[in-house]
Amino acid sequence: MSQSSIVPLIEIGDASPEVRAVYDDIMNARGTDWINNFWKVLAHDPKLLKRTWESIREVMAPGALDPLTKEMIYIAVSATNNCEYCTFSHTAAARAKGMSEAQLMELLAVVGMANETNRLANGLRPPVDPQFLP
Amino acid sequence: MSQSSIVPLIEIGDASPEVRAVYDDIMNARGTDWINNFWKVLAHDPKLLKRTWESIREVMAPGALDPLTKEMIYIAVSATNNCEYCTFSHTAAARAKGMSEAQLMELLAVVGMANETNRLANGLRPPVDPQFLP
Amino acid sequence: MSQSSIVPLIEIGDASPEVRAVYDDIMNARGTDWINNFWKVLAHDPKLLKRTWESIREVMAPGALDPLTKEMIYIAVSATNNCEYCTFSHTAAARAKGMSEAQLMELLAVVGMANETNRLANGLRPPVDPQFLP
Amino acid sequence: MSQSSIVPLIEIGDASPEVRAVYDDIMNARGTDWINNFWKVLAHDPKLLKRTWESIREVMAPGALDPLTKEMIYIAVSATNNCEYCTFSHTAAARAKGMSEAQLMELLAVVGMANETNRLANGLRPPVDPQFLP
Amino acid sequence: MSQSSIVPLIEIGDASPEVRAVYDDIMNARGTDWINNFWKVLAHDPKLLKRTWESIREVMAPGALDPLTKEMIYIAVSATNNCEYCTFSHTAAARAKGMSEAQLMELLAVVGMANETNRLANGLRPPVDPQFLP
Amino acid sequence: MSQSSIVPLIEIGDASPEVRAVYDDIMNARGTDWINNFWKVLAHDPKLLKRTWESIREVMAPGALDPLTKEMIYIAVSATNNCEYCTFSHTAAARAKGMSEAQLMELLAVVGMANETNRLANGLRPPVDPQFLP
Repeated sequence: MSQSSIVPLIEIGDASPEVRAVYDDIMNARGTDWINNFWKVLAHDPKLLKRTWESIREVMAPGALDPLTKEMIYIAVSATNNCEYCTFSHTAAARAKGMSEAQLMELLAVVGMANETNRLANGLRPPVDPQFLP
Repeated sequence: MSQSSIVPLIEIGDASPEVRAVYDDIMNARGTDWINNFWKVLAHDPKLLKRTWESIREVMAPGALDPLTKEMIYIAVSATNNCEYCTFSHTAAARAKGMSEAQLMELLAVVGMANETNRLANGLRPPVDPQFLP
Repeated sequence: MSQSSIVPLIEIGDASPEVRAVYDDIMNARGTDWINNFWKVLAHDPKLLKRTWESIREVMAPGALDPLTKEMIYIAVSATNNCEYCTFSHTAAARAKGMSEAQLMELLAVVGMANETNRLANGLRPPVDPQFLP
Repeated sequence: MSQSSIVPLIEIGDASPEVRAVYDDIMNARGTDWINNFWKVLAHDPKLLKRTWESIREVMAPGALDPLTKEMIYIAVSATNNCEYCTFSHTAAARAKGMSEAQLMELLAVVGMANETNRLANGLRPPVDPQFLP
Repeated sequence: MSQSSIVPLIEIGDASPEVRAVYDDIMNARGTDWINNFWKVLAHDPKLLKRTWESIREVMAPGALDPLTKEMIYIAVSATNNCEYCTFSHTAAARAKGMSEAQLMELLAVVGMANETNRLANGLRPPVDPQFLP
Repeated sequence: MSQSSIVPLIEIGDASPEVRAVYDDIMNARGTDWINNFWKVLAHDPKLLKRTWESIREVMAPGALDPLTKEMIYIAVSATNNCEYCTFSHTAAARAKGMSEAQLMELLAVVGMANETNRLANGLRPPVDPQFLP
């Protein structure tokens, strides 16, 4: 597990007003008093920090899909791409939203299967059936 | 869109008894009278065909997650990996199970966002917060 | 299937002497009188063309692994990455070196399985067993 | 190297009868008295554990390809996807089946080359030559 | 090359006022009178359309890096991920900003090399040298 | 962070004359008196070591693109593929060539955005606009 980041963590007490405003917004939205390390590295670019946070908040809000389903999709992508940080953080987030261990295991079973059949299709290259075209 | 596959399609009428049994099982399970091309290329290896079908059927069955959520996870992985065949076939399957266009668009918004933040984390490598460890 | 490339194909009759020398080397090594399109696009950078060809020739030569095994590894990577051109060209090359359909199907079954279990490991993150450390 | 998994390891002594039966099957097939961590995390879903083990055993059995070639294909996929656990475990397995260091190095040279030319083809997008179509 | 999209293209004349406002913004920013297909599919989710466009505009604006360097980075990622649409559209954009053929070829040579050495490192897993830690 | 490599590091004092010649060439070219671990694992295959070093030196040399731009492209690919070693080593190399923190952050913002829109395009599959074809 990584012990060292590419840029230093910008802690709450060291944040510029622009960064601090985003940190406060994150803590308010989550009802917590701490900031996770992902934001502390993004803070080296305050516009990137602000845009990413605002995009995440908009994308992960309840809509046509519920927030837990969205977290599980996040896990599916993170496991496919093998992002260690994202796998730990979004699994924790999904559990906090009620994901059971049985749901996690089924989710990963689907992720594994999809990664398998994606490559069977890539290697054998069947033409898309006309029935599947919209 | 691919016009040619790596191996010929094995049509229903040309299937060996071993392959035909799997084709019949697929058509029975789905209540259809046709087989999509993915299975027609896998049929060159009857054991691979049978194992893949039985695994898919088990993995995609209702359980702790409902079948539509599972199809959406399949789409998330397929779009991340850029499998054209899988994207078309599983989007069609999800729509047949009731996925609305609004759900598809939100799903892809999450997939896009996850792919973005996965790489921000990969490039900056923040350590995993102890709060996220199980 | 792509009908248009990002840069024009440099045909044999239009090649500069520097490119033509590599084309001749490829045709001599393969005992053919044509050049496949991969080299015709690389030819826009003669040094890239020459270096890639010489590296491929060295890497794919018989050594501790035989050339057919090497072609099958090439297919495994290309199917995992979903490179259409590479899948078609290296499957053709492996068949020319004697790969049977049964071998192709088993190869892809392993590729599919590896892609599946890679993601089960990514999502669940078991620690590496000490027995596996060299 | 990961020190913490997403779900606890289910040790042999804590396994349910259903899980224990698979563990015994794995140890019998391998002639060992220990279970590696991959199975101990999968064990949280006994059906996933059983299906994955039975699929792996079938896929990796001798057939048109020998078991060592199959292990090397597994390494090729795992290195391409950057699965740390899978790279360590399948390199150990391949060595146990007789892979020499020279074979490992040549295997990885092919994997590297394929990953390179896959992207040259993706970026320049040459059309597939008609000679390569089956 | 794909002939069919997963959702219909929303043409300028059929756009809702909310979508039309973004389309107008894109055309104004670019000084063009047409909209490329990427936006016409995103338009099925007006918030996704607006957020993606505004993010792209902010990210690709001149800053510490010039716009052409940014387009070349976009190509590097798109070729690595094998996104056909993105490769064609961002290569066209980079050429419009002055990228020469020699620059494109050198860019792809680096992309190929990085994809190769990424996998040599993944497969052999050398520890990160302390000299490289920030 | 990995503490153990798949093959032992071949230190300078233990290098064969063939490996030592490449090590010396690397140290001369870089004006340093140490060798980073990537080369020490490649050294198990002297031809792979020599070819990779000579290719890297040629590809990364000043040309139509300057060396810093090339290092940033290397980072873009390494972050997309999630190669930990490569991310640390090429970020260090880019910094040594003058990359500012602002440039690093903008670079990663583009990498993130490209990874996002690549998947939006993969999932929605808009046809390539004729205006983008070369």
